[in-house]
Amino acid sequence: MKATAVAFSLLAGLTALAQTNQPPAEDFKPAATNQRDKDYPQVNSEGRVRARIAAPQAQSVQLEINGKRFPMTKDANGVWTGDSTPFDQGNHYYGLVIDGAQVPDPGSTFIFGSGSWRNDIEIPAYDQDFYALKNVPHGELREVLYFGKTSSTNRHCFVYTPPDYDKNSNKRYPVLYLQHGYSEGESGWGAQGHAGLIVDNLIAEGKAKPFIIVMENGGISGGPGGRGAPPAGAPPRGGGRGMFNFSAFEQALIGDVIPFVDSNFRTIADQPHRAMAGLSMGGMQTRQITLAHLDTFSAIGLFSGGVISTNDVNNTPGFREKVKVVFVGYGSREIGNRVGGGVGGDPKVNTEALKQAGINTVFYVSPNTAHEWLTWRRSLHEFAPLLFQD
Amino acid sequence: MKATAVAFSLLAGLTALAQTNQPPAEDFKPAATNQRDKDYPQVNSEGRVRARIAAPQAQSVQLEINGKRFPMTKDANGVWTGDSTPFDQGNHYYGLVIDGAQVPDPGSTFIFGSGSWRNDIEIPAYDQDFYALKNVPHGELREVLYFGKTSSTNRHCFVYTPPDYDKNSNKRYPVLYLQHGYSEGESGWGAQGHAGLIVDNLIAEGKAKPFIIVMENGGISGGPGGRGAPPAGAPPRGGGRGMFNFSAFEQALIGDVIPFVDSNFRTIADQPHRAMAGLSMGGMQTRQITLAHLDTFSAIGLFSGGVISTNDVNNTPGFREKVKVVFVGYGSREIGNRVGGGVGGDPKVNTEALKQAGINTVFYVSPNTAHEWLTWRRSLHEFAPLLFQD
Repeated sequence: MKATAVAFSLLAGLTALAQTNQPPAEDFKPAATNQRDKDYPQVNSEGRVRARIAAPQAQSVQLEINGKRFPMTKDANGVWTGDSTPFDQGNHYYGLVIDGAQVPDPGSTFIFGSGSWRNDIEIPAYDQDFYALKNVPHGELREVLYFGKTSSTNRHCFVYTPPDYDKNSNKRYPVLYLQHGYSEGESGWGAQGHAGLIVDNLIAEGKAKPFIIVMENGGISGGPGGRGAPPAGAPPRGGGRGMFNFSAFEQALIGDVIPFVDSNFRTIADQPHRAMAGLSMGGMQTRQITLAHLDTFSAIGLFSGGVISTNDVNNTPGFREKVKVVFVGYGSREIGNRVGGGVGGDPKVNTEALKQAGINTVFYVSPNTAHEWLTWRRSLHEFAPLLFQD
Repeated sequence: MKATAVAFSLLAGLTALAQTNQPPAEDFKPAATNQRDKDYPQVNSEGRVRARIAAPQAQSVQLEINGKRFPMTKDANGVWTGDSTPFDQGNHYYGLVIDGAQVPDPGSTFIFGSGSWRNDIEIPAYDQDFYALKNVPHGELREVLYFGKTSSTNRHCFVYTPPDYDKNSNKRYPVLYLQHGYSEGESGWGAQGHAGLIVDNLIAEGKAKPFIIVMENGGISGGPGGRGAPPAGAPPRGGGRGMFNFSAFEQALIGDVIPFVDSNFRTIADQPHRAMAGLSMGGMQTRQITLAHLDTFSAIGLFSGGVISTNDVNNTPGFREKVKVVFVGYGSREIGNRVGGGVGGDPKVNTEALKQAGINTVFYVSPNTAHEWLTWRRSLHEFAPLLFQD
């Protein structure tokens, strides 16, 4: 068995090497993440990215995706072009390096991720239909400014209201509080996460109940700031960073955000109709905050951000009665990794133990994705249908 | 008189030259348009911009603002720094040029303007308080997706709803349709235009009636596309360009946008409670569309985008009875220019003639601004209090 495994590894390595050295499939098309009318960057059927930029006097231009750099070459007109090796389906952060300067690619649009405004590039996924823009009723993504008394700051969040929210002015809705990861911000789920489109499509198919989604800044990782979509010139800009201490955000969420949402949106303002989920650091925040406030939340979603253990259940009075569903999702390529996959122990073992203990638990593994947005889009897509089913 | 004018011009030229060659005032501060926690670019009290970027192998790096380029110089660590000459107060579009490659500055945030996603930089204005983020009740900026039957496309617009819109579920509101300029898009007024903050502040001071603002894509200049704030990876991306033929947008606005807004928002759906305004090309669209649909609109705002003439009034049956206010605004530095200032003749002469003809007309000149956003922010700030006063 061991020999077979080694042989398989070698074979896989050789295949990857061969792929790298072979000429790319010449079926490149402009990426979905491009600016309108921009021909580059492009993506081919193998998941390779081809970048292009005019830089007549440059000595060296590279394409950088997820921290890996790929050389580009100059033609007679001073235009540089270069291809990456194949990347997984989904959304990756990238940029260009021009004579040592790390700059955004002017051909792509911009999102806030990994600590700054930057480019992302979309490699079409086999299941991209679930987050596609379709001719179905759409909810709204609202940029909301308010003053938070607990934090004593002007706060900035996004609120998704489901289709027909404004047509049924007597109807009230449950709420999902949905958090971003470390060094990201409140814009991520609505932009590169496609949260609105995912839930629009599920509601149109009758697979999810309509609910409100609140996307606030988790408080310790900067964030995009600004007003308007895209990033506005207005304050709030500037802002602090901190270590993984979630207590200020816990206070702001319980003391400011939820009361603001309950008094400004038509929510069903009780525990059975309130859920919380988050990705990566947002999952850790979700675990800490929900366990401390089970009279506030009835559903828990952890996307690449740890697990609930049987110890957590045993140490939290009322857990069995109060929690309707625990969802744990990961990308297949991150399980066992230090970041994401390893937090709180093996998620499969943990969720199995929870199920055995009689907790309604769902464990999901996103095929062939790492600690990236396709894992989290799919996790939301799996989690949303489980919510507010009573 | 002529000699005096020439002498004054010479003197102004020499002063400008002297300013350029003098060392800058060393009171530079990070710009309001920076990404959080980014120290550069900076702006000083003279309106100079100082840019900085690490580009160790570069041969040449320049700062480019409004098409003017300024050299930057390299230090021993490979970090380039350079200052511009003084610029007017307000918002300017800019970028960097690294060995001939025109790229965004990774220190700034991004807006959609002048045909692409790019950087803007804010030079603090003496009157910036009117668009500052304050602890007042805020409206929401909503990103709205819907299917337009007339255009047979998935449409994307932004809708500002005033403070307390969701608290008074029986109250209905008037609507301002507010358009962007050529090669810009539906995101501009909410982002670099600060439309929401301007109207929030006016409402808080009791200077404007609460109203809804609809910001749609004028249809012939591409646009930002996307869902979420900032630009999403999702469609709609791609899109066409065209010449200055506004009939497709006119049909979409009358046939799709207004019916959608009237059936999805709590509008007062009649002519007295509907206004239209726009900047530059959006002003020309406003003129054409309102004159053709005076049963739909009762107020007209043209910001750096032409005038209404007495001929227009005489050629449009019912104008005197139906139009409550005509507002014409310009920047002092653009009057007489081919772009903006010159459209439809001298705006001061034209508006005087309108007043003489008994039309309620307001002419506004923004001090020391050109065909840029501070002119248009100020124009909105002057126009909004005139609306829906009955």
